[in-house]
Parts: sequence; structure tokens; C-alpha cells
Amino acid sequence: MTGRLTVVGTGPGNPGQTTPQALEAIASSELFFGYAPYLDRLTLRADQVRVASDNREEIDRSRAALDAASKGAKVCVVSGGDPGVFAMAAAICEAIEAGPETWRRLDIEVLPGVTAMLAVAARAGAPLGHDFCAISLSDNLKPWELIERRLRAVSEAGLVIALYNPISKARPWQLATAFKILREFLPVTTPVIFGRAVGRPDEHFVVSPLGEADRQKADMATCIIIGSAETRIIERPGMDPLVYSPRGVSQ
Amino acid sequence: MTGRLTVVGTGPGNPGQTTPQALEAIASSELFFGYAPYLDRLTLRADQVRVASDNREEIDRSRAALDAASKGAKVCVVSGGDPGVFAMAAAICEAIEAGPETWRRLDIEVLPGVTAMLAVAARAGAPLGHDFCAISLSDNLKPWELIERRLRAVSEAGLVIALYNPISKARPWQLATAFKILREFLPVTTPVIFGRAVGRPDEHFVVSPLGEADRQKADMATCIIIGSAETRIIERPGMDPLVYSPRGVSQ
Repeated sequence: MTGRLTVVGTGPGNPGQTTPQALEAIASSELFFGYAPYLDRLTLRADQVRVASDNREEIDRSRAALDAASKGAKVCVVSGGDPGVFAMAAAICEAIEAGPETWRRLDIEVLPGVTAMLAVAARAGAPLGHDFCAISLSDNLKPWELIERRLRAVSEAGLVIALYNPISKARPWQLATAFKILREFLPVTTPVIFGRAVGRPDEHFVVSPLGEADRQKADMATCIIIGSAETRIIERPGMDPLVYSPRGVSQ
Repeated sequence: MTGRLTVVGTGPGNPGQTTPQALEAIASSELFFGYAPYLDRLTLRADQVRVASDNREEIDRSRAALDAASKGAKVCVVSGGDPGVFAMAAAICEAIEAGPETWRRLDIEVLPGVTAMLAVAARAGAPLGHDFCAISLSDNLKPWELIERRLRAVSEAGLVIALYNPISKARPWQLATAFKILREFLPVTTPVIFGRAVGRPDEHFVVSPLGEADRQKADMATCIIIGSAETRIIERPGMDPLVYSPRGVSQ
């Protein structure tokens, strides 16, 4: 038996943003592991089997997927967005490193996808057109002090910031604290973009100045992009403004 | 006449990584503006017209594209990768802001794509599995001193770093200097991934420790990912190692 494990990202949610390569990998797999809402987006055949789990169980899910592949199954591990950005590819690698030697002999493939910040940025214009960073605001797996230090370092250095996992029921206060820290380094007029389910019928998309940025505008599925001091807004009659970061800095 | 302008990204080069949404926008456009090698990747009909230009002419290209759209054409501006990451979407916005009022009334749409670092990361494992940044090493549009300051800030803060535009004939020395700066903050064993044309027949993919990272391994189409001190390598018998950044930091 020759099992294999493919880690795919289905993109930000709009079916037109899932790559043909990911669709092909899904079509040729037998067993699907993932967070239930991501598995719900797949159109599977009767012979394809779902193994859904909660979004806090990445390592257990990874072990189960690797075990199935080592027993000969064609396994697909499903993330939304890109599987390499705060998603399943790293969890799979962690499980392999800590797991049995046989898992290192498995055929493992990671297929890239459109990660949330790219879809939110495209909806806004081009806020990631200059140097930028992506930071997870979740302190489940790293100390909050480290997140604060990183927010200070990157905003002071002039990078645009994409925040993943900005808020959840278990982490209600961190986002407001992050905005407070960023206001120490950035003008209150800096554009802050809140994007959720961009390109889907339930899209939520708002641009606020940093001085008025409010954690109520985000939930756990929101990606937030905070401009740099260089990021600009172009007003347009009867349309959403364009938000963009110029390619150059003249300082 | 109702012109429109769509900015698309065709992904990193593997046709399976171009989104259906981008392909649809290409099929429904009449006039294509872009850097010649990106236009070469498109399969166009006889009634579709190419306007190729050099890769240093983004603003002139943007103006020509906006002018054509304002005269009623269905225009497609083509980037490789994602159009919002060091690519055409920001140039289009710059041209709109500096251009005639009529350009602000145009129907403008940006469609996201798989940007190079995501494809290189997927090929390697999951090096972008933790907080990361993307920095263009080109000092054509920003001072070199600013780039140095950013490299120091992000490596000291523990972010994984993706470098775009690492080297060119006109910028031969910057990459070696960048490696030298990074060696001040990161262990010499830190994995450095050089990825070019990943997923294409002419793929070039190398992993080196930072202490031996050599600018000769890169050209202008290479995306380089430099791990953090946490980034790990899993050796695998008879296969490329997996390079990944764990989701958590315990410090």
C-alpha cells in the first residue's frame, strides 16, 4: 500500500479562488481531515470520507491523518486560505518531527492557496503593495509579551501589518490592546481594514482610521490589515475608496 | 462605453495554481497590459490584444491601461503571483491618485493570486507557519538604509523573512549585505530557502544554512525565505527535508 498525505488550502472562501491544483488533489483523495467548516466547503463523492474535528485540535488531527496515510490511505488535510500560513502544514510537520520514524518516509505534499490577507488586500486596493508582515494575535501558543514586542518592532519599522486570529471568545481583550500599541507608533488616520468572508455572500468589509478602530468590527474569521504611515486612501464617487501602500518610500 | 480594469495575478507559474476567477477575468478581457514574460504565460484568443512592456515601466503601463479603460476597453493588467504583493495593483492605485478625476470613476477590480513566497514555502514544508514578513530588497524605490533597518527589526523580533526582488544586474551587492546583517541576529544554522520557478519544469530549489547562504543561488525571479531561530529541519531518507516554523514559541 502506498499512502500519501496532501495538505491543501481551499482559499479564502470564494470558490473561484480555489486553485485547480487543490481541486485535483481533493478529487484524487479518499480521506479528508480538517476543521468542520472547511470540510463543509468541499464537494465530495459518496466514496470520499470526512473526519471533521474542532479548530483547537490540530496536532491530534495531524497524528490521525499521518497514521491513516502510513496505513496506505490517500489522505487530504484541508485548511482554508493557504495551508502554510497559521494553518495545518506546520502542525503536520510538528507531528512528523515528534512521531514515529515511518512518518518521515511518507509521501507528503503541501499545495499553496490564496491566504486571507491577499483576498482582503485585493478587495481594498493594494494595502500590501509595500513591505508587510503577518502576525497571529493568538496567544494560545506564544506569550502575549512577544506579540506586543513584535507589534512595536514592525510598526516602528514601517511595515504594513496583517493580523490573523485577531479575536475569539477566549481572547476578548487582545485586539483592543494591539490597537492601543499601534497608536503609539502610527498616525490615528492610518487606514485599518477589517475583512471577513471576502468574496462570499456574507462578506463583511470595513475601513476605519486607526483612531476609531474598534474590536467589535472583528470576529475570529476576520483578517485585519493595518496600513503604515505611508498607506493612502483614494476616495471615489459612489464607490468604496481604494486603500493602497505606495511601492516607494522617499524618506 | 463602459470600460473596466481588472488586475489579475496568474500565480507563481504552475498553471494549476492560477485561480479560476483569474482565468475567467482573462477570458472576458480584450486588452492585456503587462511585463512580457507574464503575458507569455497567457493563452489568448485572436481577438485579444497584448501590450507588453519592460518590468521597470509600471507607472507608464498603468497610465496606458487606465487610459484604455476610460475609453471603454475591457482591460486586464497582468502580474505574476499575487498582483497586490510588490506588483501591479499598487502601481495602478498610484496612477489613479495622480491621474485625471475620470480614472476615479472607473470600474476597478483586483483579483488575488498565489504569491511566490507561498509556493516556495509549500515546496519546503511550512517555513511561514509562524509570524513572518515580506520585504522587497530592491532599493530602486526606497533607500537602502531603510531596508537594512527593517531587516534588523524583523530578525530581532523573531519573524520569518521572505525576500522579494533579491538581486538583479543593477543591484548585485545588496543580497550579500542582507545575509551579513541577518547573521548578526540569527544562528548560522538558520535555514535559508531559495525558490525559483517552483512547480515549473525549470524549478530551482535549494536550502542552505544562513552561514553558507550565497547570493549566487539567487536571481531576480528567486524568492528567498529566511527562517527564524525557531525554524526547524526534518531530515527524510531519500527525500528533500521538510523545513518548518513551529506554530508556537515557548520563550
